[in-house]
Formats: sequence, structure tokens, C-alpha cells
Amino acid sequence: MSDVLSVVDTLCKTPRVGWLQRGVSNAESVCEHVMLVTLLAGEIAAQLNAEGVEVDLTKVLAVAAVHDLAESILGHPGREVRDRVRWEELEEEVIKREFPHFAELFRWYRYETNFVGRVVAFADKLATLIRACRYKKLGFDTDDLIKNLYGKLSKYDDLAHILDLYVARYCPGAGL
Amino acid sequence: MSDVLSVVDTLCKTPRVGWLQRGVSNAESVCEHVMLVTLLAGEIAAQLNAEGVEVDLTKVLAVAAVHDLAESILGHPGREVRDRVRWEELEEEVIKREFPHFAELFRWYRYETNFVGRVVAFADKLATLIRACRYKKLGFDTDDLIKNLYGKLSKYDDLAHILDLYVARYCPGAGL
Amino acid sequence: MSDVLSVVDTLCKTPRVGWLQRGVSNAESVCEHVMLVTLLAGEIAAQLNAEGVEVDLTKVLAVAAVHDLAESILGHPGREVRDRVRWEELEEEVIKREFPHFAELFRWYRYETNFVGRVVAFADKLATLIRACRYKKLGFDTDDLIKNLYGKLSKYDDLAHILDLYVARYCPGAGL
Amino acid sequence: MSDVLSVVDTLCKTPRVGWLQRGVSNAESVCEHVMLVTLLAGEIAAQLNAEGVEVDLTKVLAVAAVHDLAESILGHPGREVRDRVRWEELEEEVIKREFPHFAELFRWYRYETNFVGRVVAFADKLATLIRACRYKKLGFDTDDLIKNLYGKLSKYDDLAHILDLYVARYCPGAGL
Amino acid sequence: MSDVLSVVDTLCKTPRVGWLQRGVSNAESVCEHVMLVTLLAGEIAAQLNAEGVEVDLTKVLAVAAVHDLAESILGHPGREVRDRVRWEELEEEVIKREFPHFAELFRWYRYETNFVGRVVAFADKLATLIRACRYKKLGFDTDDLIKNLYGKLSKYDDLAHILDLYVARYCPGAGL
Amino acid sequence: MSDVLSVVDTLCKTPRVGWLQRGVSNAESVCEHVMLVTLLAGEIAAQLNAEGVEVDLTKVLAVAAVHDLAESILGHPGREVRDRVRWEELEEEVIKREFPHFAELFRWYRYETNFVGRVVAFADKLATLIRACRYKKLGFDTDDLIKNLYGKLSKYDDLAHILDLYVARYCPGAGL
Repeated sequence: MSDVLSVVDTLCKTPRVGWLQRGVSNAESVCEHVMLVTLLAGEIAAQLNAEGVEVDLTKVLAVAAVHDLAESILGHPGREVRDRVRWEELEEEVIKREFPHFAELFRWYRYETNFVGRVVAFADKLATLIRACRYKKLGFDTDDLIKNLYGKLSKYDDLAHILDLYVARYCPGAGL
Repeated sequence: MSDVLSVVDTLCKTPRVGWLQRGVSNAESVCEHVMLVTLLAGEIAAQLNAEGVEVDLTKVLAVAAVHDLAESILGHPGREVRDRVRWEELEEEVIKREFPHFAELFRWYRYETNFVGRVVAFADKLATLIRACRYKKLGFDTDDLIKNLYGKLSKYDDLAHILDLYVARYCPGAGL
Repeated sequence: MSDVLSVVDTLCKTPRVGWLQRGVSNAESVCEHVMLVTLLAGEIAAQLNAEGVEVDLTKVLAVAAVHDLAESILGHPGREVRDRVRWEELEEEVIKREFPHFAELFRWYRYETNFVGRVVAFADKLATLIRACRYKKLGFDTDDLIKNLYGKLSKYDDLAHILDLYVARYCPGAGL
Repeated sequence: MSDVLSVVDTLCKTPRVGWLQRGVSNAESVCEHVMLVTLLAGEIAAQLNAEGVEVDLTKVLAVAAVHDLAESILGHPGREVRDRVRWEELEEEVIKREFPHFAELFRWYRYETNFVGRVVAFADKLATLIRACRYKKLGFDTDDLIKNLYGKLSKYDDLAHILDLYVARYCPGAGL
Repeated sequence: MSDVLSVVDTLCKTPRVGWLQRGVSNAESVCEHVMLVTLLAGEIAAQLNAEGVEVDLTKVLAVAAVHDLAESILGHPGREVRDRVRWEELEEEVIKREFPHFAELFRWYRYETNFVGRVVAFADKLATLIRACRYKKLGFDTDDLIKNLYGKLSKYDDLAHILDLYVARYCPGAGL
Repeated sequence: MSDVLSVVDTLCKTPRVGWLQRGVSNAESVCEHVMLVTLLAGEIAAQLNAEGVEVDLTKVLAVAAVHDLAESILGHPGREVRDRVRWEELEEEVIKREFPHFAELFRWYRYETNFVGRVVAFADKLATLIRACRYKKLGFDTDDLIKNLYGKLSKYDDLAHILDLYVARYCPGAGL
């Protein structure tokens, strides 16, 4: 089992490389991202429940909290590396070995095998979208990413109204 | 409802004041602490399950992930402030108003109203203990805190073997 | 008496929570604020003297330099906490206990018991106003704060021309 | 007159180069040093007053607060640069031009023209000494500096008992 | 010979004071600047070679990599200090003493004694120009610097087309 | 061709993941490492020349300065990722596409196809070794890495005396 201090220290000091490549000097770390995904996923689950759509809030929060743990071992490399190594499988391998007690939760998210995992996968992309909108407001070029993520999020048909809500709130002036 | 970016940015840039007061220049933030509590709580739940003690892993993770959210509004003031304001009640008030969907989970932890909450409350103190041990190893004076936390953790009788395990692993040479 | 290294390390690593809540990632620390208040208070005193209004420059500098020392013990919590605890009294209590030699100077500022204290109290709000204007220029939402502080500063009738001068210099385009 | 935001931003983001050269990665900035000198000078003045030695506390605080302002224009270069340019004169020139209202206070300190200035000059060196002792405790090589500063501080005969007090408190194990 | 860890730690933690004075809180360090100069100088050399103008790529990279090493001893003081001390001579003195093996390369750059040195001197100014353009885009006032550097760079007649190319790419909207 | 600002910003804000995993909170970035390799490689080349062993100093510096540029695109992932993707080939691919003018220099280093490249490859490992020794002195656990790197460096038979020299200087007390 991994050293928990090492895990946290790595996640919380590893900047997400996409932001660095766009010039953000104080870029969001992996653990800041995880925290944002967790909050969003929880809010969305609560919203869905309020609409009468059932989804277990605690399961959503739990999955979100552990969904990026593999990056404590793997780091957060560029897109090109992830495309090359079948990143998903590598992540799963690490999770199984280092965090076996979280492996099932991880798979829900990674392969969207159930609605809980689907909500977290949606929140994961949404977190990156709204961060990109914030960085745009501060003067960084994130238009390509905003467009790309909005496209991916739009494919979650049943969550379209959720997407609209967050875009209206966090991405005014982003041209979406 | 709170602005999620504001919540994350505040939690992840707010250093825990106790470390600053002991001279740690790059001190653990509230969100680094939350991440550590979440990992520990999850590990402990898994360990308990392996021992035949039932506790819901996803609930433990969920509670840990949200247990310090009130600090995004309240900040992380010194002990003297917390003692003065009935900190627990103030936290609860904030949670109810800003994160109503997490209010029940918060109460489990804050008042240890069930075993899930108790495990998280234990992990919360344990996270601070092992961070204090790490800082001690780097040359900072944290002996008072180590002693104090160990005392509090020792009162969780049914988790004594868990405490021993973590102390052996993360606090060798701390004189516990 | 407090450990001076602990005091400085805490003040200089504690970000002012209001900036964090508005998304500033590299937010002004308490000691950066103190330095700004000191410079402003000194400039204002010099300006007043030049206008024939007497105020002791060294006393103004001295009061400004120590006016936030209590935060080394108390931290810099959110507005909600300060409103709850009668922050002023708590600060005074800490100053009396930890920095008794500065207690009189602190009271001049906190309760504006004389003109020296009044100038520092004005400079304290002014420092926050011009920082808010700077952050606005960088893309952060500080309009509410700018408006609120300008309102408070406008009540210092005899310093109205000073306020105009600084607003013209540091807040062009802030709509004041 | 200088832009006050520029002055503070420069002082508070300029690391003292001597620490960098000894490998301290999160080194004390000029403004952290100023804050430390101010606190120490104030404590010493209070202590002297308690002993029946008269020295004006507010003047001591005022001088300490402004003693390094020239570095906002000059930066904080290495020893070799300072030795070459008659640093004291250059500082005075900057102060006279940019902060004329503080020029007299600056001279008290720089040329130790009165007891107030002498106390601040002593506190300036003492602040560096106790920071060096702290860094030594964390594993950095500061022995040469500790020795050198202790030598200089020892020449202030009438403040010898003050030196002993601070060394006992902040430099145990430094071999002084 | 200098301690290499001390050299790197100093260069990479010393912010360029001009940016601090313009309010950039996370300002480019000397070593970030060196890296940028090296990349630019290499690109320019390659471009010149492609145009049929001969210049040794490896020599250009080598000179760029060492051109600011003296700042590890001298720090990065303000313009006023550099004007006062005949900075170039002081740098050369330090290089000769601490890095004698790099002294010849340094002189090529500092006195532009050959085309290699001239390309690096050009890249040095260009690196500062395009960083100034980037900071302008983020909301900082760097117009004076942009104008000043563009003027200096325009004097390199034979590299005018290179200048145009970089200005078009990195300074759109800077009014050049 | 890559955006040079993006390249530098990424290299200089990407911490080397191995240090994070060992708990170093202010870990060496890729560009700090590059700077260290460059200085060491230059020193070693000068030393070899002094011994009568010919190696081109400018070529050594040039290769060292560009040897890690691929990480601006790829990031700095954990060992496990690098082992999986044939990291060397991926790096070469990126260099050829993004920095074709540096491709030959890169290959000298990566495949140690000549003595220049061999010296840089040696300096690359040596830079990591002496950083590990420094971190050990500050209280971090780097023993495994120190041992491992020393083993690899010992295989460069003709540079054994160089290794001894640096170990004596930077790793006293590391048990080598």
C-alpha cells in the first residue's frame, strides 16, 4: 500500500500540465482539481435528486474523491503520453496494486459502468471546463480547450440542463 | 449556494495556521489535509472491513471529503478563535446554508453520531498527527501537538490497533 | 511574550481570506497588507503635515506597523467569524497578553481614540481599497468590495481630499 | 513619489539573496525581514524602558518599519555589489528622492546618529542572526553567518544582556 | 569555484526585479529568463542557418546558457544599481573568478565581440520583450519596457526580419 | 515549432515527480535540473580539458541545455509511465517534431553516441545524485535513489575520479 503522505504531497504539488502549457504560472494542482470535481459531482447529484432522478450522493462523492489517485504514482503527463500508453489501463493497474480497496469505485468512473460513475465522469470534464473559463477571464488562451470540453459534455444528453446551468454561471462571455 | 471555484480556491490556498505558528513555511493547506483525511479514512474502513467490522467505505469517503468545507467561508483561524465561537455550531450553520445537501454527512462527523462519522473524526486527528510527525523529522517543533493528538486518539479504544499501526509507520522516533 | 519568528512567519504566510474567496491565487498576505498600510499612513501623515495639519509621523508609522499583530495568534478568518466574536475585543485581549508594550498603540487605531489612530484606521481601509482596484485590473471580481470600502472611507470628511487623490491614482476605471 | 503597491510588491517578493545562496528554497523576503526587525526593535525598546533606560518606543518602531525601503528600488543584491557601490549612500539617495518624508528616520538608523537608530541597527543584525539560527536547525549551513553576526552584535556593549537573552532563546545549539 | 547547487538555487529563486516593480506576483526568475534566451537564441541561429547565414548553433546555445551566471553571486538588483557600478565589468570579474572556464563565452555575449555573442545579446533583449508582451496581456503595465526594448532591438539591422517575426507572434496588440 | 513561452513556463513550473513522492514540498523543477546539469557538464568538460582529455566545452553546454526539452510537451511522469512507453523514443519523436534544430544534439545525449553526449548523460545522473544528497541533509528519505544513482554513475569508468570528487564535495555523510 502506498505511503499516504507521499500520495497527498504528490497530488497537491503536481500542476496539471495543460495549464502550464497555456502559461498559467500558479496552475491548479491535481488535488485542487479533485476537490472541484468532488464538489461539483455532489452538487449535481443533489440537483438530480431534487429533480426526482435517483443517484446515491455518498457514492458520487466517494468516487469523485478517489478518481485521480493513480496520478500520485503516474504523475500528470501531457496528452501525447496518455494517448500512447492506454492511460486508462495503466491507471487501473496502479489503483488495483496501490489502492485495491478503491478499485471498484475507480472503475465505475473510468468506464462509466453505472450512473454514479457517469455523473463523476461528467463532473470531471465540467471541472476542467469551468477552470478554463476562469483562466480565460484572467487573460490566458484556453478557447480551444473550452470548445473541446463543451463538445464532449454536450454528449451527455440527460445532463444537458445541468451543463447549461454551469455554463451560464461560470462561463459568461466564453462564447458558448 | 457557494461558488465552487471560490470554495476550492480558498480551501487549497489556506494554510493550516498551527503549522505556520510552528514555522513551517510551505505549510499544508486545508485541502491537502482533507485529501489526507479521505485517504486515511478509506484505508481504515477497508482495514476494518477486512477484520470483519462493518463500515460503509463509500460513506466514510464521502464524509471525509466534505468534513472541512465550512472553512471555505470561515477560514482557518487559531485555536483561540475556535474556542471562543463554539466553532462546531458555526460550522454547522455554514454547512446548512451553503452546502445543505452535505449537512447530514457533516453532522455524522462533527458529532460522531454514527460509526462512519466516528471513523472520519478519528482519521481527522490521525492526519494531523502523522503530518506533525513528518514536520518533526524536518526539524520543526511539533512535540506538543504530537503528544496532545496521541492522547485524544488513544481514547478511541476500539481503534487502538489502527492507531498503533499508523504510529509505527509514520512516527518512528517521535517517542510515542 | 510571543516567539517573534512564529509571529512573522504566521503573518507573512497567512493570505487575506477575502482575496482567496475572490479567486486570487497568489493573494496578499497579512504582512504585505501591514507594509502597505504603513507606507500609506506615512505618506498621508506627511501630506497632512504639508497642509499644516499636525499629526506625528513616527506615531502614525508605529501604530500602522503593529495594528494587525493579533492575527499572528488569531489568524485571518472570514467576515462571518469576525462578526460573531466581537473581533475587536478579542484582538485587544491578545495584544494585551502577547504584546503588552504595543497595547496602547493598538487601541489608538482600533477605537480611533486620537487623530493618529484615525489616520491609521483610514489607511487600513484605503490599503484594502487600492489592492482591490489592482486585482480588478487583473481580472478578479472585487467590485462589491471597492464600493463598500469607498463608502466607509467617504465618511472620513476631513480626509476626503486624500481619498480623492488615491482613488485617482490607483483606481482609474473602477467607476468611483 | 513611488507607487506604494510597487514598493510593497517588490519588498515582499524579493528574497534575501544570502539565504538563496545557502540553499533555502522558501527564503525570507525583505519585507518578512522588516517585520521581524520591527518586532524585535519594539521588544528591545520595551525591555530597555523597563530597565530604566529611556528610548522612545514609537520612534524605534517607525524607524524599523522604513529602514529597508530603498530596496524596493535597488533590490537586494549580493554582498559584493553592496561593497562596491557605497550602498549606504545609494540607499540614502533613493530615500531622499522617493521617500523624502522618511529620510530623517532613515539616517538615524543608517548612521546610528542617535540611540533610536542604534537600537534599530542592532535589531537589524539580530533579526538576521536569529533567522540564521532557525535555518541552521532546519539543516542549512549558516554557521559562518551566525559567527559573523554574533561578532558584530557583541560590539554593542550596552546591549550585551539583550543579545544574551535572544541567543539563549533562539539559538540554542548554535554554539554561541 | 562556486558551489553549483548554490548557483542554481540562487538563479532559479531570484525574481527579475523589473517584473516585481510592475506588480507581477509570480515573476519570472533569472533562470527562467536564461532558459528563454537559450531557446530563442537557438531558434534564431537555426533560422539564420536556413537563410544561408552561418552561425554556430552549439556556440550560440552555450553562450546563452551561461550569460547570466554572474547573477548567482551578484543577485538581480534594480537598474539604478547596475548603472552605478559598471555592471558589465563587475559581471566579468565574477565570471573570471568563479567560472573561469566560461569567461571567454561570457565576453562574446557581453561585448558582442563576434556574431555568436551578438545573436545572444539580441535574444537576451528579445526574451525580455516577449515576456513583457505576455505580462501586458495579463493586465500588467509594461508599455514603457516594451517600447524601450523594441527600440534597442531595432538597432540590430541585420536581424530586423527576425524581430518582426517574433513581434508578430508574441506581441500582437502591443502596438508595435 | 513550439511556443517558446509555453516551453519555458512548463519546464520551470513542472516539479520532478520523484522529489514530490519523497515529500519535498518545494521540489526542484525540470528547468532547475537542466540548469544544474548544464553547470556540472561545463565544469566536468573544463576539468577533463585540464587533464588533457579533449572534449568540446561549447558542445557539452549546448547539449545539456536542450537535453530535457521534450518534457515541455510530455511533462515529467513517474518512472512507471516512462518504462511503459519507451520514453527515449517518445522524447526523440517530440524533439524531431517540435525542435528539429536540436534533434542531433539530443541524440548525442540520449544514445551517448559520442563523448560529448556521454559527459552530459553522466552529468544528468550526477545532478540528480547531488540534489538527492542535499535533500537527505534536509531530512528527506532519498537513500534508495542515492544508492541507485551512485551505482549507475560508477559504471562510467573513465569518469570515476570525477564522480569521487563530486561525492566528496556534495555528499559527505551520505554513506557512499
